[in-house]
Amino acid sequence: MTFPAPLTGVVPPVCTPLTPEREVDVPSLLRLVDHLVGAGVSGLFVLGSSSEAAYLADRQRRLVVESVVGHVGGSLPVLAGAIDMTTPRVLDHVASVTAAGADAVVVTAPFYARTHPAEIARHYRLVAARSPVPVVAYDIPVAVHTKVAPDLILGLAADGVLAGLKDSSGDLAGFRAVVTGARTRPGITGFSVLTGSELVVDVALALGADGAVPGLANVDPHGYVRLHGLCRAGDGEGARAEQERLCALFGMVGVGDTGRMGRNASALGAFKAALKLRGIIDCPATAEPQVPLSADEVQRVEEFLAGAGLL
Amino acid sequence: MTFPAPLTGVVPPVCTPLTPEREVDVPSLLRLVDHLVGAGVSGLFVLGSSSEAAYLADRQRRLVVESVVGHVGGSLPVLAGAIDMTTPRVLDHVASVTAAGADAVVVTAPFYARTHPAEIARHYRLVAARSPVPVVAYDIPVAVHTKVAPDLILGLAADGVLAGLKDSSGDLAGFRAVVTGARTRPGITGFSVLTGSELVVDVALALGADGAVPGLANVDPHGYVRLHGLCRAGDGEGARAEQERLCALFGMVGVGDTGRMGRNASALGAFKAALKLRGIIDCPATAEPQVPLSADEVQRVEEFLAGAGLL
Amino acid sequence: MTFPAPLTGVVPPVCTPLTPEREVDVPSLLRLVDHLVGAGVSGLFVLGSSSEAAYLADRQRRLVVESVVGHVGGSLPVLAGAIDMTTPRVLDHVASVTAAGADAVVVTAPFYARTHPAEIARHYRLVAARSPVPVVAYDIPVAVHTKVAPDLILGLAADGVLAGLKDSSGDLAGFRAVVTGARTRPGITGFSVLTGSELVVDVALALGADGAVPGLANVDPHGYVRLHGLCRAGDGEGARAEQERLCALFGMVGVGDTGRMGRNASALGAFKAALKLRGIIDCPATAEPQVPLSADEVQRVEEFLAGAGLL
Amino acid sequence: MTFPAPLTGVVPPVCTPLTPEREVDVPSLLRLVDHLVGAGVSGLFVLGSSSEAAYLADRQRRLVVESVVGHVGGSLPVLAGAIDMTTPRVLDHVASVTAAGADAVVVTAPFYARTHPAEIARHYRLVAARSPVPVVAYDIPVAVHTKVAPDLILGLAADGVLAGLKDSSGDLAGFRAVVTGARTRPGITGFSVLTGSELVVDVALALGADGAVPGLANVDPHGYVRLHGLCRAGDGEGARAEQERLCALFGMVGVGDTGRMGRNASALGAFKAALKLRGIIDCPATAEPQVPLSADEVQRVEEFLAGAGLL
Repeated sequence: MTFPAPLTGVVPPVCTPLTPEREVDVPSLLRLVDHLVGAGVSGLFVLGSSSEAAYLADRQRRLVVESVVGHVGGSLPVLAGAIDMTTPRVLDHVASVTAAGADAVVVTAPFYARTHPAEIARHYRLVAARSPVPVVAYDIPVAVHTKVAPDLILGLAADGVLAGLKDSSGDLAGFRAVVTGARTRPGITGFSVLTGSELVVDVALALGADGAVPGLANVDPHGYVRLHGLCRAGDGEGARAEQERLCALFGMVGVGDTGRMGRNASALGAFKAALKLRGIIDCPATAEPQVPLSADEVQRVEEFLAGAGLL
Repeated sequence: MTFPAPLTGVVPPVCTPLTPEREVDVPSLLRLVDHLVGAGVSGLFVLGSSSEAAYLADRQRRLVVESVVGHVGGSLPVLAGAIDMTTPRVLDHVASVTAAGADAVVVTAPFYARTHPAEIARHYRLVAARSPVPVVAYDIPVAVHTKVAPDLILGLAADGVLAGLKDSSGDLAGFRAVVTGARTRPGITGFSVLTGSELVVDVALALGADGAVPGLANVDPHGYVRLHGLCRAGDGEGARAEQERLCALFGMVGVGDTGRMGRNASALGAFKAALKLRGIIDCPATAEPQVPLSADEVQRVEEFLAGAGLL
Repeated sequence: MTFPAPLTGVVPPVCTPLTPEREVDVPSLLRLVDHLVGAGVSGLFVLGSSSEAAYLADRQRRLVVESVVGHVGGSLPVLAGAIDMTTPRVLDHVASVTAAGADAVVVTAPFYARTHPAEIARHYRLVAARSPVPVVAYDIPVAVHTKVAPDLILGLAADGVLAGLKDSSGDLAGFRAVVTGARTRPGITGFSVLTGSELVVDVALALGADGAVPGLANVDPHGYVRLHGLCRAGDGEGARAEQERLCALFGMVGVGDTGRMGRNASALGAFKAALKLRGIIDCPATAEPQVPLSADEVQRVEEFLAGAGLL
Repeated sequence: MTFPAPLTGVVPPVCTPLTPEREVDVPSLLRLVDHLVGAGVSGLFVLGSSSEAAYLADRQRRLVVESVVGHVGGSLPVLAGAIDMTTPRVLDHVASVTAAGADAVVVTAPFYARTHPAEIARHYRLVAARSPVPVVAYDIPVAVHTKVAPDLILGLAADGVLAGLKDSSGDLAGFRAVVTGARTRPGITGFSVLTGSELVVDVALALGADGAVPGLANVDPHGYVRLHGLCRAGDGEGARAEQERLCALFGMVGVGDTGRMGRNASALGAFKAALKLRGIIDCPATAEPQVPLSADEVQRVEEFLAGAGLL
């Protein structure tokens, strides 16, 4: 399908359910997709950070895109991450996910190598020149250890290199600079500015964002779709109340913050435990080498679900 | 061949010469290997950071290992990097490079994902359990943004998980802790402690390191082999003089530090320009999206070579 | 005067005008205070980062507090920074600024020393136990290289140790956690949650902040007072437009981003150049060792003022 | 006395013993000084990081310098830290410590404020212009979050601005660049290059350092003086053995690494516990807000002392 310009609404970064043997659990994945689509999301982002793309082998990545694209059948846009260290490797992923039917690719700044802004720009230009579908920049300094500057994003948008931004930087002031620039700079039309935050979606939309890509929307897509609707309807108080409910629910990502595991393991473990508890996926396993949640930690996830009215 | 326990001497991280179209230039690669072997190095490390492994597609990585292993024919050990974000992806590279004949694999801590020490340990245990060849840890915080603690390394060494360490952390005190621990802790035998520094090889050897893996050894392998020999012979003054000559030569990595490019581009561009100037490789191109050196910057590389007596 | 519980509205961090000899220019300082008070601000914060507190000798700090407190005569609250490395040194500043009449003290986490959350809590408890006036936490990781966690802030608020927070962390999600917690946690009443941002004041107020402490309010206090009023009146569109005008004006902080100076020098140099151009202070000098703006850079500040309708 | 050019040998950063009420315990301080001088150190560095300078009020800092200078009576040089955020504040400390008799001042890069290399250079030039005694640069990125580049140090040395460097950066390659440059660059004479490391003193001296400023020398000054002598005598094996004994002893700094306190509290708590256990000081208290060691942790310090033959 044609990639919307701009893409608006809630676009969950779809978790990748795994079997106990750490293979992609396709039936669970498709149930999760149905759960999201049924809640009214406006697009799906597969192979992002919340999808554990960094932990999936190439064949697993392909399987995810093929399964999801085949399942939704063009009913809504599917964005696919092409997460790798540098241009040549990203281009191989672009070829793979677009062959599998992705409607857009989502690409971070180079990582592992130490990179200069000129090289980030070059990276996006080279990727866009070879990609058959639109390219969305993925600004995620916590993973790639580089912040992509708003001016660089806007320059590439004006040149038609980038079709959008998924901002997971946590820097709302920089995000606003992109939002405002995308609205006011000559030559930019239809550019999608999407926040990756779970916690400030209401205010991101209030300052002009097109949509949101919250990992927590796997667990409660109805909540984020409702939040988006309240914001669009101009109901600030209602939006704030819904956002605060979701902020409380998001507390689940900290259940593993007990010194035994990293932040990824705790957050993704909590999302998957919640999806299992809600009956959507079969197995809460996260990919290796992440440490799994304990039974007590899963119990705390359950309490967060109960507190948010989801059990 | 059997991986030495420990591996000692100079083990250059072999640059990957590229054609102007950014394909692996196998004839140049093999000339470079001959240049290194002829200088008396004791092993070759392919697909490391200086090899631009982060920039090579999987098929290019395979081609490099096959070409080098086939060329040296077991005459010296070939270590191959299996550089990727997490365990499942690293395991695919391990399978690929060992199928191509690598004698050991070199593996970093997980990156992109935020990782806990327990997950780093789990990562190495899982990789070692599935690798048909010894696993060498690659501590390179500048790339992966995690430091692997000496105690963790030593614990894995004592358990037979790790066969060695390539330390590119710049933390000589931590390096010394591994050197001393590898000598004194019960259960550790034949563990190879290798410094990745270009600039303090003399003192690393003096405090007990087994060998060195300096990127600059691509440009001047004779110098590093001579330095290693002087250290082993106990000629501290001679070693220091040779090391200082090499430190001056290493200044070439800064020729691109003019605000136009990143540090990788400057350093790898300088090494490759030097190899071209010395007549060893055909084309100094670095992989995308690295910015190339200018003619003036190449001229400065030539001056560094001249200053070190290499032209 | 009694410190408001909570303090609301616009509380500018007052710049410290200097003479060409880098002494405090008291007449200019008092003109600046009149400019701010006349615009309707609800408090004054002296000796903060925008006041160049880090650059002022102890006698200069005392002179600033005495001058401002004496001038405003209790008509609005004066908060004073007690910025130093650790508890014993901060306590000396607390004694000095409260002797000079400050109505509250603003205190960062310890810096220079590497500090643990337990030590940050201990620091605030010890300071509060000895301070005759309320203590406001100043969360400014860019300066002190530690983030004060929302839970730690809220725990100290519930215990009556802290009276408020000035958040200059740039982390709006964490800020929201404090805002929400201050409203909902048992035992917390009258706690002032203030954003230090210039760029997201509208949304910070929308999600429940009590007020703002924007450095740019030195240059355009009327703008920030107007913005606060629009937010309180529920005029989201009007607030957003005013905020976007102020965001554009804030671009002035980058005039010195040309590689010649640091970010503090550029931002504070721009604020002071603007105050000089607006006729409020006599001399735009910043403290040593900051590099001064060039004539061209001052010209660009003037263009920012013109663009915002301030000339 | 005249400051040696260069200063060589062991120059301990003298701990500041405190009473239980956290006042300077002058009798204990002077016993510690006697302990150090008796072991053959060649200078004393007061008010450094190991002295808890960041935690001492101005009157306490003055008392330390006056007490130590008065006690040693010119028999060996006393260097004093002038640790503060920026030039104007550092200059006040320079005036104070030189009035109290310090023979040289030790000055870090500016901190708290975000600083540019040009501003670091300006800082040192302004301080040196106003200091009646030589200025030694203190490179300690872990505290000030800026690394002072070797070229900047060497340029200031050539201009007569700096008389020496105390390097606590942990970057031995950069340290070597200063050592080599100080020997070979025109215009530099008598510049003192001192390592702040406890763990690589042997190799720092081997590559040309003039001396060492190890915090652990408070606990075992005889060991470091012996190590320095072995290095100067060219006994590499003896030096390495002594250094390794000291490395093992240094393990004491980690006794508090149990999640309850910061690294400063653990390391300084261990040094002071050791000094108390060795009968040199009366009270092991560290300054506020550092968390004190537990009885168990002090017991482990004792085991480290026993292991190094110091009990």
